[in-house]
Amino acid sequence: MVFRYELIKEDRDSKARLGKIYTPHGVIETPIFMPVGTRATVKAMTPEELKDLGAQIILGNTYHLYLKPGHELIEEAGGLHKFMNWDRPILTDSGGFQVFSLGDLRKITEEGVEFRSHIDGSKHFISPEKSIQIQNSLGSDIIMAFDECAPYPSDWDYVKKSLERTTRWAKRCKDANANPDTQALFGIIQGGMYRDLREQSAKEIIDLDFPGYAVGGLSVGEPADLMCEMLDYTVPLLPKEKPRYLMGVGSPDYLFEAVIRGIDMADCVLPTRIARNGTVLTSQGKLVIRNATYSRDFTSLDPECDCYTCKNYSRAYIRHLFNVNEILGSRLATIHNLYFLIKLMENIREAIKEDRLLQYREEFYKKYGYIK
Amino acid sequence: MVFRYELIKEDRDSKARLGKIYTPHGVIETPIFMPVGTRATVKAMTPEELKDLGAQIILGNTYHLYLKPGHELIEEAGGLHKFMNWDRPILTDSGGFQVFSLGDLRKITEEGVEFRSHIDGSKHFISPEKSIQIQNSLGSDIIMAFDECAPYPSDWDYVKKSLERTTRWAKRCKDANANPDTQALFGIIQGGMYRDLREQSAKEIIDLDFPGYAVGGLSVGEPADLMCEMLDYTVPLLPKEKPRYLMGVGSPDYLFEAVIRGIDMADCVLPTRIARNGTVLTSQGKLVIRNATYSRDFTSLDPECDCYTCKNYSRAYIRHLFNVNEILGSRLATIHNLYFLIKLMENIREAIKEDRLLQYREEFYKKYGYIK
Ligand SMILES: [Zn+2]
Ligand SMILES: [Zn+2]
Repeated sequence: MVFRYELIKEDRDSKARLGKIYTPHGVIETPIFMPVGTRATVKAMTPEELKDLGAQIILGNTYHLYLKPGHELIEEAGGLHKFMNWDRPILTDSGGFQVFSLGDLRKITEEGVEFRSHIDGSKHFISPEKSIQIQNSLGSDIIMAFDECAPYPSDWDYVKKSLERTTRWAKRCKDANANPDTQALFGIIQGGMYRDLREQSAKEIIDLDFPGYAVGGLSVGEPADLMCEMLDYTVPLLPKEKPRYLMGVGSPDYLFEAVIRGIDMADCVLPTRIARNGTVLTSQGKLVIRNATYSRDFTSLDPECDCYTCKNYSRAYIRHLFNVNEILGSRLATIHNLYFLIKLMENIREAIKEDRLLQYREEFYKKYGYIK
Repeated sequence: MVFRYELIKEDRDSKARLGKIYTPHGVIETPIFMPVGTRATVKAMTPEELKDLGAQIILGNTYHLYLKPGHELIEEAGGLHKFMNWDRPILTDSGGFQVFSLGDLRKITEEGVEFRSHIDGSKHFISPEKSIQIQNSLGSDIIMAFDECAPYPSDWDYVKKSLERTTRWAKRCKDANANPDTQALFGIIQGGMYRDLREQSAKEIIDLDFPGYAVGGLSVGEPADLMCEMLDYTVPLLPKEKPRYLMGVGSPDYLFEAVIRGIDMADCVLPTRIARNGTVLTSQGKLVIRNATYSRDFTSLDPECDCYTCKNYSRAYIRHLFNVNEILGSRLATIHNLYFLIKLMENIREAIKEDRLLQYREEFYKKYGYIK
């Protein structure tokens, strides 16, 4: 099997780890932030621009691609890589999260989930087997088991029933994967905010022996402290020799806290979504570019950043672009925000290498204005 | 003065001419198509992408920039070139066309035009002097005289009165230009669809001795034949040693017909505007990418095109992007359309060089499906 995780170094002062993930489309250095390309495109970006930023892997959303343009069409095109002109690794989610959060009138049975498309109301059914079949058609390097991400808050009984079904679905996903040698299937640990259920889920999913594990059901609206507590408890249950993926996390502080607790991979639409609304991440904290304060500010978005946007454009210009709804505004802000997080993770990897991650976090938080 | 037009060669079989325009920001090869960057950005594009396509000069719109972000702000930023990160030549229009077509409740007097902003209704007054002052602030290489483009159709009496005022305004513009050595002011010939008035306008404007001349008041809704007739009549009145600019023309057939009648420069928002609606120009004619026909068409937009879009993406993928409203769709279509016209003009220059322009036009029209 081509897929492999290599643990290079553990941080002296935290659970953070430096590693490499080998996939059929190349090697990923971890810890890593993965930009999200929901509908076969990372919004506003070309693949070349993503590479220039240092993006090593991107995400695709199975639910969206299944509805439009359809996985058969993408398979006909030669797979998602070829369809969207991206030759580095791709991870696809299972569609579960979107089925539960976007799909209308869903009906969950042991067999799977019946739902109506959020686009046109058409009726669909996704089972664990169907999710894997779609992801096999897409040809992504890392594919995810079809799970239920229980909403927050949910009561103990519901979460227990849900995680046990997620385990049974995980087994079916594993059996359904037609390309285990080229598409690594990750299992997903659920269990809500309950320690005993997290333990039960971790045990059951790890018993099925996946090449990697995701911690699901976090960053769903719970307080930051509770997420950290769940990570503190869950991550040590995972085998050291496998990569660990925290889904839906993409703010600088959450990334720090996740990495420090042993997470290797994270993804989030946040940096690209807020960019399109004109909010950018900077070393001094968030900046809302539409603010009148910046109308005659001819400095760059972030004086410490050396991205394409910061090297060539002023806040005044970018503010103007947003004020008149020009596409280039979204482009420039997206470039900057993705670069900011990709560079942050590079710095984090460097800090792990030199056993100064906790110190780097303190420095970063202080400048960023983040009070823990 | 840095500005200079060099006539390199005249076509054997038509009035087409090969030339070079020297400006403070570089040399332009003519005949040329100029992409329009209305609000200090060619929609959806970066300056680097424009250069990669071979764009040698772009347009800015004085009316739009005056309203947002304001010419003083752009002057503070170091001029339009620096503000938008474009170091090649820029031409700005006078704002006249937009004042007359977009401004509300306009009142024309000898002094200038009072109008209300189409954005917020605020009251403004633009005179010939004000237009030049704004363009001086913007720092564009070629600036245009403030004129009235009479609507089509207009009666003889109105057009005569209007063109005579345009002449008086042109004189005032010339007197107002604070940077004649670095910003070449073009005069604009009006005269509607009346031969005698075209002749009168040409004589009056040429008497004022500008470094270049535009033919205004065409491509305003009149039939193609009438435009061609007016060009046939007007262009020969212009001095050979000055460049000639036809405003608002950007379809392949209009470009051919204009060049063949001795036009050196043209601009239009058409290629970028239709691109954002998913219509692309190809060697086989226009193509509406949203059509279901292309849903599983894995060929490129134009098999004869070697632009970034055509080298890397299929019709099926681009159709998908438009179907789900992804910014990348607009980007890829814009790249292709601009490349198509820039390449067309390159081919036209090559054909003039080799005295086979009329033959090239026949071949192009045949393939494009255009019947004269
Ligand atoms: Zn930056
Ligand atoms: Zn092309």
